[in-house]
Amino acid sequence: MPKVAIVGATGYTGLELLRILAHHPQAEITCVTSRKETGKKIKEIFPFEDAFGELVFAPPEPDLVAEKAELAFLCVPHGAAAQMARALRAAGVRVIDLSADFRLKDPKTYESWYKLAHQAPDLLSEAVYGLTEIHREEIREANLIANPGCYPTASLLPLIPLLKEGLIAPEGLIIDAKSGVSGAGRSAKLRLIYCEVNEDFCAYNVAIHRHTPEIEQELSLAAQKEIVVNFTTHLVPMNRGILATIYAKAQTGDEQAFFEALRSYYASSSFVKILSPGQFPNTAHVRGTNLCLIGLKYDPRTGRLILVSAIDNLVKGASGQAVQNMNLMFGLPEETGLSKRPLFP
Amino acid sequence: MPKVAIVGATGYTGLELLRILAHHPQAEITCVTSRKETGKKIKEIFPFEDAFGELVFAPPEPDLVAEKAELAFLCVPHGAAAQMARALRAAGVRVIDLSADFRLKDPKTYESWYKLAHQAPDLLSEAVYGLTEIHREEIREANLIANPGCYPTASLLPLIPLLKEGLIAPEGLIIDAKSGVSGAGRSAKLRLIYCEVNEDFCAYNVAIHRHTPEIEQELSLAAQKEIVVNFTTHLVPMNRGILATIYAKAQTGDEQAFFEALRSYYASSSFVKILSPGQFPNTAHVRGTNLCLIGLKYDPRTGRLILVSAIDNLVKGASGQAVQNMNLMFGLPEETGLSKRPLFP
Amino acid sequence: MPKVAIVGATGYTGLELLRILAHHPQAEITCVTSRKETGKKIKEIFPFEDAFGELVFAPPEPDLVAEKAELAFLCVPHGAAAQMARALRAAGVRVIDLSADFRLKDPKTYESWYKLAHQAPDLLSEAVYGLTEIHREEIREANLIANPGCYPTASLLPLIPLLKEGLIAPEGLIIDAKSGVSGAGRSAKLRLIYCEVNEDFCAYNVAIHRHTPEIEQELSLAAQKEIVVNFTTHLVPMNRGILATIYAKAQTGDEQAFFEALRSYYASSSFVKILSPGQFPNTAHVRGTNLCLIGLKYDPRTGRLILVSAIDNLVKGASGQAVQNMNLMFGLPEETGLSKRPLFP
Amino acid sequence: MPKVAIVGATGYTGLELLRILAHHPQAEITCVTSRKETGKKIKEIFPFEDAFGELVFAPPEPDLVAEKAELAFLCVPHGAAAQMARALRAAGVRVIDLSADFRLKDPKTYESWYKLAHQAPDLLSEAVYGLTEIHREEIREANLIANPGCYPTASLLPLIPLLKEGLIAPEGLIIDAKSGVSGAGRSAKLRLIYCEVNEDFCAYNVAIHRHTPEIEQELSLAAQKEIVVNFTTHLVPMNRGILATIYAKAQTGDEQAFFEALRSYYASSSFVKILSPGQFPNTAHVRGTNLCLIGLKYDPRTGRLILVSAIDNLVKGASGQAVQNMNLMFGLPEETGLSKRPLFP
Repeated sequence: MPKVAIVGATGYTGLELLRILAHHPQAEITCVTSRKETGKKIKEIFPFEDAFGELVFAPPEPDLVAEKAELAFLCVPHGAAAQMARALRAAGVRVIDLSADFRLKDPKTYESWYKLAHQAPDLLSEAVYGLTEIHREEIREANLIANPGCYPTASLLPLIPLLKEGLIAPEGLIIDAKSGVSGAGRSAKLRLIYCEVNEDFCAYNVAIHRHTPEIEQELSLAAQKEIVVNFTTHLVPMNRGILATIYAKAQTGDEQAFFEALRSYYASSSFVKILSPGQFPNTAHVRGTNLCLIGLKYDPRTGRLILVSAIDNLVKGASGQAVQNMNLMFGLPEETGLSKRPLFP
Repeated sequence: MPKVAIVGATGYTGLELLRILAHHPQAEITCVTSRKETGKKIKEIFPFEDAFGELVFAPPEPDLVAEKAELAFLCVPHGAAAQMARALRAAGVRVIDLSADFRLKDPKTYESWYKLAHQAPDLLSEAVYGLTEIHREEIREANLIANPGCYPTASLLPLIPLLKEGLIAPEGLIIDAKSGVSGAGRSAKLRLIYCEVNEDFCAYNVAIHRHTPEIEQELSLAAQKEIVVNFTTHLVPMNRGILATIYAKAQTGDEQAFFEALRSYYASSSFVKILSPGQFPNTAHVRGTNLCLIGLKYDPRTGRLILVSAIDNLVKGASGQAVQNMNLMFGLPEETGLSKRPLFP
Repeated sequence: MPKVAIVGATGYTGLELLRILAHHPQAEITCVTSRKETGKKIKEIFPFEDAFGELVFAPPEPDLVAEKAELAFLCVPHGAAAQMARALRAAGVRVIDLSADFRLKDPKTYESWYKLAHQAPDLLSEAVYGLTEIHREEIREANLIANPGCYPTASLLPLIPLLKEGLIAPEGLIIDAKSGVSGAGRSAKLRLIYCEVNEDFCAYNVAIHRHTPEIEQELSLAAQKEIVVNFTTHLVPMNRGILATIYAKAQTGDEQAFFEALRSYYASSSFVKILSPGQFPNTAHVRGTNLCLIGLKYDPRTGRLILVSAIDNLVKGASGQAVQNMNLMFGLPEETGLSKRPLFP
Repeated sequence: MPKVAIVGATGYTGLELLRILAHHPQAEITCVTSRKETGKKIKEIFPFEDAFGELVFAPPEPDLVAEKAELAFLCVPHGAAAQMARALRAAGVRVIDLSADFRLKDPKTYESWYKLAHQAPDLLSEAVYGLTEIHREEIREANLIANPGCYPTASLLPLIPLLKEGLIAPEGLIIDAKSGVSGAGRSAKLRLIYCEVNEDFCAYNVAIHRHTPEIEQELSLAAQKEIVVNFTTHLVPMNRGILATIYAKAQTGDEQAFFEALRSYYASSSFVKILSPGQFPNTAHVRGTNLCLIGLKYDPRTGRLILVSAIDNLVKGASGQAVQNMNLMFGLPEETGLSKRPLFP
């Protein structure tokens, strides 16, 4: 049974790893760290933690982590993650990094969007982009996973197969994405307090969201051609869920062709489900699951294909996909410990 | 003091007219109708109704309405609205129709999208599309107003001036719109009950929403050229508000030019506010008001202009704009009785 | 592996049974019924149903159910449940009834509160009230379980041990309870649509709620004395969760004594957790779990003990407790297939 | 036209004063202060502020305030409020203090509950408790108003007339109150961020809430007898609204007598409405208004009277009542500028 650590376990992605791994039959959490809560038991901070309530938060020291675990999930901010990853890799610990630090292959792109010099550029070449359904084989062998962003996961899964098949044009893509509030993290910011978010809807980081280059990198790889996209993010007054509405110039008017291409591409990927043309997903139907649901419709009036994808931002968009990757890295069935049944309502 | 009637006063747009007119210094509600609640006092149905609590719901009989009021707001379903409008116009009553019946100038377009033969095609020529800031002069003289849809209001106000000025291309427009739940009306449907909507986000009526031809008609008029758009609607778990995110091919890279064009076009329209480039509106900031806030940003990477507009779907998107039109029809200042200050939070 | 049926599987408690049993290692769902959806696959109605998507809704015919299952969960309205239970018991099927039909031992009390003649009074004597932690031994042997109401579950678990120990007075009890909206069921009623519930809080059925006699019956049993209570219910704008705030006249001023009595009573009941005096539960901390969390505080100023309990109304308050009872009836460990880890946030 | 200042205008009660006074025909805001935003225009911080967008935040200096205004609303924390009040009173400015500093007549009670030495005990004797309907005459002449807490307002209005009439017993009162989140203020605290509050319900400050002595002081005054109460507060996932459910030992079994006593007491108070026995209020029906709705029912089974009151915590519970008091202080009709029509939905 693999021993794993969660570095930075008090945020929403760390908590979600605890939740998922509590039901995982093949992994043991041996170490959780928290700078702020060092020395306290998990259950002192989170009274609802039952399975791991007696675990004590360790300080985020690489040596301590390496002593206890063979794989570490990093749930710390970018910058800090790269430093931690370097130390852990040097100590032989396999790493799944949920930050953005190893997602962009070019450190210059990283610096330009994140306004920070990369803290471990030498590790970039060994990092594998952990979009499981797309990079499954490399993930099995990887020692350092760059776990994808939540928005990129929702955006890339519907687009990559269609770009590969040449069914949509690589130019002019628009991704209009909407996220629940847990995507903004668990920190005390005025703009996140209940009364500022509830009964409101807004766009944010328009044309400057940091997930843009990550999406473009992977789309370009799929299309074998440099792609730029319009990517806009919005905040939805709900806890969990991302819905991405995507507009692409269709290269065929045969709606069924898009459906078949996606269905076929994900035939052996049990977490990705393609709905019949004209049906569209609800985020409530993936709540708490590792699923990605994809709907589509061809609009003959404009020649555009409209794709709509839904994920739970904390599961398939973060911690669930991280566990899916861990499963592959340990030779376990990909689905181990991951739910396909939502908490509805 | 004009005497006005609300035909169909128990839905959300009817209730919102009651709310607005309660604070209106220059209009008197002399008649409210409700098929279902005929004979009951308003306050028996809505205990919070103070100003008009003693009014009694009349049956929706044109004669009764004509006897009591010189202007009627129609808050009944399409089809029924056209029939009521014909009878009221014949009796000399001015009409502001909040349904879709008189919005589309071509009855064939109406029949194709609404699957219904038009009930009063002869009145179409005298109907004025009540997007106040665009058709202000015709509205003053009109006797029959086709009050715009909520989505079209949010979509058209940012686009029309830019199309008129040739600052954006008429091809390839995408409108990705999101609405609070009151837009779906006040009726007992399973898909609208709390647990089916709360903590969910979804797209609906993708590529087939009935507001599409209304948007295209008015854009085509502005551009002097036939325009088709992608228009997608989404349901946000909140009571009120529409946010429309709009993507247009820019004809210039000068971001300030878009801002100035909009600012100048709406210089004398106190309900439309253009935010500085890079700033974007929140629906919470227009809650309960007749405002339309517009933000914009030019994205040099893709050559697209991104526009974001926010309205309260029940106010500027329905009953507020209806009162704004009524004000003009009666020679009152446009702003009379209409709030610019939101209930926040 | 026990074969079980869900009679009335399209409401929230039926759906919740599907969700829980999907993760249950020792039960097989062999039959689901729905009058309205007869003949359709589950996944046609609920696209998110993965585990049981191919199951087809049967009509609610006792013969069909008896042919396929050895135990049936009844998720149909009161009245209908008693009739179904009689037919199924006659056919040798064990029954867990989630309706109110077998909760009240006296059919006259039933008729007085439910305004309906009891449909199977002869079965009342064999029915066991399924509040698991209180009636565990009888449940093991039972063939007909009256699964408790959601409010009674939250109300009784904190009170029964303290009444048995004589630590609180049997007179003057007040239970002020608050529930999420899923407790109102999955039906198209105007008062349940999103905009009527969201951003609202209200009391309902004040002094006449039908769970009152059920609470009083079990409290009287515990106290060996007839008890009447004030019981008030409120609707909270959230999907799941019940919080009951309870006021009792304390028979001692020793706060620790209440804590120890509860802790000791539930020492071997892993779903009931007693918080340290002065700590109080959140409904979010039990979301999706079968837990009941109980907090308490003695107020020396008034001599009252304040108890606060939290459950998920669809799990411990309905379908989870039903599965807990099923586990006992089949000789399985009580916890089988039931989560203690909430979906948080 | 009275000139007024808002000291501490960036919190929710300060913002609400701006909203209300924007529609007030007889008051002019001449000064707003904010320590943090000094020198900025209101509209830089709150883009939705239209009426007062050009006002500039001044530092909270008493001299500056006194120069500009004849009355000041204090929306600053307790402790700071008393100091500001002393300086403003010395400069001849009339003060309406929305903090707790002048609500408790006995500075020892204040110190015991607020853990702070009173900063201006000499002013306590001139302070008038601003529960308008109860202390109307003293308020007219007052120069220093202690504006009531939100919970006390909702709790006292139903109880005081019944205690005065001897219709309920002064012993054994229980107030179980529930509040929307804006009552917790506008500050960046982790426990207030959206995902920690949404889809949750909890009790807080059980048996130690600071509004307790304020409630007891005023009840004791009404009953002419020392009263202690159980007072419990809960957090509801919504922006605005308080509902208080109150349990009292009835001194008569005549339900109509309670109704008549309340109706008669508030006959000339247009903001307090008594519902027919058995009807109960919704917080949504007072949203944005200065109303207090009161429902009641006598429960013959327990001999208790159940009262339910609803207010908007930011209006009748804070800023609306403050303006109501200001109106009286300036000889204006009490209702001036205050709405009775909710924003619904």
